[in-house]
Amino acid sequence: GALGWLGLTLGLWRRQAALAAARDDEEEKELRQRFMAPPVSGLRELRRRRRELRSRMELLIMETQAEVCRALAALDPGASFAVDSWERKEGGGGISCVLQDGEVFEKAGVNVSVVSGLLSEEAARQMRSRGKSLKAKDGKLPFCAMGVSSVIHPKNPHVPTMHFNYRYFEIEEADGTKQWWFGGGTDLTPTYLNEEDAVHFHKTLKEACDKHDLKLYPKYKKWCDDYFYIKHRGERRGIGGIFFDDMDSPSKEEVFQFVKSCAKAVVPCYIPIVKKHCHDSFTPEEKLWQQLRRGRYVEFNLVYDRGTKFGLLTPGSRIESILMSLPLTARWEYMHNPPESSKEAEILEVLRNPKDWVH
Amino acid sequence: GALGWLGLTLGLWRRQAALAAARDDEEEKELRQRFMAPPVSGLRELRRRRRELRSRMELLIMETQAEVCRALAALDPGASFAVDSWERKEGGGGISCVLQDGEVFEKAGVNVSVVSGLLSEEAARQMRSRGKSLKAKDGKLPFCAMGVSSVIHPKNPHVPTMHFNYRYFEIEEADGTKQWWFGGGTDLTPTYLNEEDAVHFHKTLKEACDKHDLKLYPKYKKWCDDYFYIKHRGERRGIGGIFFDDMDSPSKEEVFQFVKSCAKAVVPCYIPIVKKHCHDSFTPEEKLWQQLRRGRYVEFNLVYDRGTKFGLLTPGSRIESILMSLPLTARWEYMHNPPESSKEAEILEVLRNPKDWVH
Repeated sequence: GALGWLGLTLGLWRRQAALAAARDDEEEKELRQRFMAPPVSGLRELRRRRRELRSRMELLIMETQAEVCRALAALDPGASFAVDSWERKEGGGGISCVLQDGEVFEKAGVNVSVVSGLLSEEAARQMRSRGKSLKAKDGKLPFCAMGVSSVIHPKNPHVPTMHFNYRYFEIEEADGTKQWWFGGGTDLTPTYLNEEDAVHFHKTLKEACDKHDLKLYPKYKKWCDDYFYIKHRGERRGIGGIFFDDMDSPSKEEVFQFVKSCAKAVVPCYIPIVKKHCHDSFTPEEKLWQQLRRGRYVEFNLVYDRGTKFGLLTPGSRIESILMSLPLTARWEYMHNPPESSKEAEILEVLRNPKDWVH
Repeated sequence: GALGWLGLTLGLWRRQAALAAARDDEEEKELRQRFMAPPVSGLRELRRRRRELRSRMELLIMETQAEVCRALAALDPGASFAVDSWERKEGGGGISCVLQDGEVFEKAGVNVSVVSGLLSEEAARQMRSRGKSLKAKDGKLPFCAMGVSSVIHPKNPHVPTMHFNYRYFEIEEADGTKQWWFGGGTDLTPTYLNEEDAVHFHKTLKEACDKHDLKLYPKYKKWCDDYFYIKHRGERRGIGGIFFDDMDSPSKEEVFQFVKSCAKAVVPCYIPIVKKHCHDSFTPEEKLWQQLRRGRYVEFNLVYDRGTKFGLLTPGSRIESILMSLPLTARWEYMHNPPESSKEAEILEVLRNPKDWVH
């Protein structure tokens, strides 16, 4: 009868609810273990579309965020990352992890964003450094952009600042063809030059590149030196690393594997350098020089950096996550010129004339 | 004979040399009294062309520089202005006066520049905010640009930062017609709001404007609020003042007289506010809020300010004088939001919604 049917239904429902709860628990556990927060697209959705490159890239940037945050937090036991998940009303969102005013790190931010929506032809053109023309339907192009980006500013002037960013774009043209490309890079900004560290950093990046194509490291090393150029100072922001944009060959899969190797190289590139120097003693003069170099960092990011400029001009972008890259403190002195053959002049020399660190 | 002639010649020469030396001494004395350094165009040249507006404007900006520097130095007896005269290899030069790390002022810069040369049509267009078209001969336009500009960053968070700039441009078109215009402004950036100070500052500017035309203050007050807008923050840089550009009517003489009134108003606008608050006590939290506001100042200047951007992109410009406007120190904290109805929230409110201070 009706009651029996009701009992059966309730029983089934309870069983399903229990299963769903168990699955939720497991998912919760997995999320806590693997990521800093639930992914923007949702874990279930990412599993469902697990073969699509968009999903694999989103998992990679989430894993990279967690890996880097954990490695940094382990070095700064007193501090911890604040985790903010945010939504963009035009579509998508992100997860910002920021550690501020720790023992080792002055400010460390690792940001993931996964956004989608419609771009104007003009905005689409600006997104690509080579500015390919794109054919839009009704002047609007559906796009998807995702990436992980990070800037780590340590307290000790003997520990360099590090930046990395790996990103993926898709734009759909009027006829349905999808344009896609990857971009990214990892670069180091020391206050004082330590040749051993510079060699370690560049060698680790070169090894990651060389697994894919021997031409990549030299090409992207040069691109990095060219990109992080503070024209009005005649100096680079730091001692470089690798930088690339608009990468769309040889194939989606191969570029993704290359980007994955680069992302996996972030921790081995940088963490040994932090460990080595985070307890180095330093003088007030060295701290002051660090603050002046932080000023240059601000100049590059606000005046030249395409990512920052694009972000500041894009309606609906999360300003706090974009400007996370700025140091906690910076300094500008009128006509500060370090004396010849000082340690300060030594780093300026390599910022003016980039060196080859691996040959 | 020949000897007599030689004697006469030597005598005349000695007499002329003595006269020239006396004149040089007097000129030296006058320069020391009136200016911070010899004017770029030379005092004799300025005297010879004393009726030309270019010369009168150069004297005005030199006098303004000296007036402001002396008024500031009088308030900070431990510190003094470093004076640098510099030349621009493309033509012209300038005088930068900077007081750094004083008792009262963290960084105070007052800069004069008088430059001339040839502009590309594109650069000429960028110089004018309204972007009038200019007809060039062989694509190049002879120009002359001069101005005084200044940013004063005090140490005490209860003393506001002040900025002013008065400038004159001339461009000669292919057919020999000269386009000319004036620009300028004076504006205040407090860390904390003091209504009495805001009213004094705006009233003093209004009085200077009202002598010339009652329409000027309201128009240029609004222009100031619109210009110093940090779009990505939804905040103005400060509580405004006046700002104008491309001013070329009713006549050269009348605009010059207006600019002169504005320049003469700088000291009475600002110095009483410094005197009133430079010994106010403050807490470490107030100093921190000041540093965060300094960060916003840097954001405006590097991302939006037309003068700074134009300067950084112009070959041969003196970077140290352009970036003199940046504070000695600045700070960026991720997600800093002052509590509701705090003193910090009070100033944010007027930065988001500019007020009318004089009615």
